[in-house]
This record gives sequence, structure tokens and C-alpha cells, in this order.
Amino acid sequence: MADLIALDNPRDERLRDYTDLRDVQLRQSVEHERGIYIAEGTKVIERAVAAGHEPKSLLLAPRWLGTLSDILESTSAPAYVLDEKSIERVTGFHVHRGALAAMHRPAERSVHDVLATARRVLVAEDLVDHTNIGAIMRNVAALGFDAVLLSPRCADPLYRRSIKVAMGAVFSLPWARIDDWYAAPALLREHGFTTYAMTLSDDAVPIDAIEPAERSAVIVGSEGPGLSEHWQRESDHRVIIPMAAGIDSLNVAASTAIACWQFRP
Amino acid sequence: MADLIALDNPRDERLRDYTDLRDVQLRQSVEHERGIYIAEGTKVIERAVAAGHEPKSLLLAPRWLGTLSDILESTSAPAYVLDEKSIERVTGFHVHRGALAAMHRPAERSVHDVLATARRVLVAEDLVDHTNIGAIMRNVAALGFDAVLLSPRCADPLYRRSIKVAMGAVFSLPWARIDDWYAAPALLREHGFTTYAMTLSDDAVPIDAIEPAERSAVIVGSEGPGLSEHWQRESDHRVIIPMAAGIDSLNVAASTAIACWQFRP
Repeated sequence: MADLIALDNPRDERLRDYTDLRDVQLRQSVEHERGIYIAEGTKVIERAVAAGHEPKSLLLAPRWLGTLSDILESTSAPAYVLDEKSIERVTGFHVHRGALAAMHRPAERSVHDVLATARRVLVAEDLVDHTNIGAIMRNVAALGFDAVLLSPRCADPLYRRSIKVAMGAVFSLPWARIDDWYAAPALLREHGFTTYAMTLSDDAVPIDAIEPAERSAVIVGSEGPGLSEHWQRESDHRVIIPMAAGIDSLNVAASTAIACWQFRP
Repeated sequence: MADLIALDNPRDERLRDYTDLRDVQLRQSVEHERGIYIAEGTKVIERAVAAGHEPKSLLLAPRWLGTLSDILESTSAPAYVLDEKSIERVTGFHVHRGALAAMHRPAERSVHDVLATARRVLVAEDLVDHTNIGAIMRNVAALGFDAVLLSPRCADPLYRRSIKVAMGAVFSLPWARIDDWYAAPALLREHGFTTYAMTLSDDAVPIDAIEPAERSAVIVGSEGPGLSEHWQRESDHRVIIPMAAGIDSLNVAASTAIACWQFRP
């Protein structure tokens, strides 16, 4: 059973994992430093716990004690109980969805581990936007892909906003970061994957004219600059979603959805 | 040539079309009442003008005068020039992308007009989120659909956020509102459309098992409650995007992208 601790002071040192949740830059460094991430809302906390993640602590207003009883019973972490106004003073915003939990960040998987049994992998290059990362994780999981690999500059899938947009898919879908991005094409080849780079270049093959290989990796780049030259050159195939004239492009989450659908196992 | 008017006072009555741009509720009523919408950024203003829309006025900081010269030359609307700090005081946020324009809201098209020559139509029910409406307009246009029809409760495609997410596709893609939503299925039938309701129900046909009709309308509902019973009953086909076990669903913009791709003309 969680240790229920009533607090009145929003400046209490024990609440430091929950301060200024709207300050993206601050939070990114704080959460990595302390090895935590923030799960927001009863549903998300439940999913995180169901995925085997451990709460370091919880923060909630009294009226959510009932809703959260299963989680409170299942953990020995401290649960800080404050009135809603004080919680707002700590976090910087009104928490609609009940509770917050500072979760222990699980150990990151290795690329090798993630690729070992996968047949369909989405590889993302330099997607710095948390909403895009979250949307992509959700789409990829829904469409039966097995895993996601991220370049070093990609946004954190365990950031609060990513988790929310992903509807918790970040907890169940295997993902890993590739440290040596330059060697990534070779790495995928070594693991038996055929690579398909999504691009807007004229000489790319329409995605519906391609039969996916037994083990396929689809690579998407950021919306502005697009996929790097290196990846475009080093991938086995360059593919395009044919589009109507005069339209710049689909957003990266939409093109990923279409690509995963087209390559569905 | 635009009438260049230098102002110092952020409270100047002539700036009233630009006040409190972050207050969604206020802006929704103000913009409809005054028959305007706000175009943000040089690129968006250029696209609006290229689509035949007329500026009522412009608002910009001196350093953007050069970038906006083509537009300034092409209109006789007043262009209010203020320093950036004062602009921020008017609008409530820092305008990164240069200028703002209060555009005359174009007359809404009739449903009949929009359907007359269309072969592929996306019909949206009660999507109240501006980001979703914007994303859907962008996807639909990119994938060669001809038009979008909106239920009365759908968010405004000409709201600043929708326009931004749509990358201006709202200016070129024909769209209309259906006032009598209950009669919408019959209306589409009368116009020769076969209707395909996107649903999560068990007895729906997988979308890749269907051959789209010559004139096809795809209907999507909101993420929470899903498409209304009425539409599910009255549509010619009920279709589903098959998904991996344990995932709730795709978000509405992603499922629309896949549906439009699958039904591409």
C-alpha cells in the first residue's frame, strides 16, 4: 500500500519531481538527470504500471483517492496528497485528469534487443517534436509494427506530451535509440532488414508499387529538411507517397501512418 | 498599394481585429461576427491572397516590410506598422512569422456546389479540435480528395490554428458545412455518392477489402464517442482499419490519412 502523505506547502522539497511541468527545457534535463518521467492521469498511470514501470511517487488531490485506489494498493511509493490549488502551484497548470506520478524511467533497450525478433520497424530521424513522436508511436503500434528506432536528436517518447499523444503506446511498443546514427543503415542491414527511405525526391518509387521484404525498416525524416542525404543514399529503396499537385507534403505522422499501413505485416 | 499607417498605441481602435489571439472562445465569436479570419505569417498570407481572399488590414513590425512587399503592393488595405513589443501587447503572443492579416472571410460554399463535380469527399462529424480539422484538410488535399463536408459542430477551418496545421490547404480545398446533419446521408445519396462510414464496430468490413465506388464519400467521427449511430446505420458501407490487438485506435487524422490513401482516385 502506498504511503499517503498529506502536505500543505507547495514548496515542500518532496514535491521537486513535479515542479514547472510546462517548462519543456527544464523538464527534459531534470527528468533525465533523476531517471524519472511523468505520467499524467489515472489511465496513463495505470498503463505505465501495467507495463511494469514503478512509481517513485504519486501526487494527487483528495478527490482522486478513490479512482486511484488500485494503483495505491499496488505500490509502496509515497503518495503526496495536496489540495488542487496547491498542486497547480507546484506544476504550473491545472491537472484535469486526476493524479500525476513520477515514474522510474525504465532502462533503455538496446537496438540489438529491439531488432532481434522484429519484422517491421519504423526508424525516425531527428523528429524533435514531442507531438510527432507520440503520434508516430501510436500509429506504428496500432498498425502492427514491432518497434521504433530513434536517431539521437529525436524527442523523448517518455516526455509527458509524447505519452499523452501516444495514448500510452510508448509503454508497450519496443523502442530504442541508435547512438551511432551514421552507421545505422549498415546496422539494419546486418540485422537482416531491407531499408525503405521515405523521401519526396522525383526518382523515388511509389510506395504502392513495392512489395515489402520479410524484414522491412521504413525510415522517415523531419518535415522541413526531409531525410538526410546519407540515409537516402544508403537505404535499399527510396519510396514516395504520390501526392496531389500543389501540396507541399503530408505531415510526418500522416505519412508514417500511410507507410505503416502499406507495409503492414 | 497598401496604406502604410505607423501606430504606437497597442490600444488603438484600428487594431481591434487583432486583440487577444490566444483567447479561442473570444476569437471564434469575434471573427465570425466581423466576417474575418486571421492569417499568420508571410507564407500563409501569400497563399490566402493567391486563393483570391482579400485582406481587410495587415499588422506588421517594420522589419517585415521588405518580405511582405509583394502583398503590400497588391492590396489597398491599411497596413498597420508597430514595433514588435507593441504587437505582442495587442495579440498576446510573440509573432514569429512576420505579419498578421485580418482577411475578409470568403462566402461559404454551398454543399451542392462542392459536391457537383467531386468524386472523392471526406465528411467529418463533430471534430471540435482545430488541430484535427487542420490536419485532415492537409491530408485530404495531399491525397487527391476533392472536398470536405463538415457537420455543424466541427471546428472552423479558417481559425488561425487550423490554417497553420493545414499549411494553407484550407484555402484551396473546397469545403462546406452541412446544416441539416440528420439529412446528410440522404443528401449524399441524392448526389450520387456511395457512403463509407469509418467505425470500430466488429461487423465492419476491412477497408482494404473494399473497391471504392466512382463517387465515394468517407465519413469520420470524433475520437471519443466515434461516429453517430445514425450515420453508422444510414451509410452504404461500414469500414474499419484493422488494428493490432490492445491498441485503442488511431487518431482521427491518421485514420483519415489511411482511408483517403486507400480510396485514392
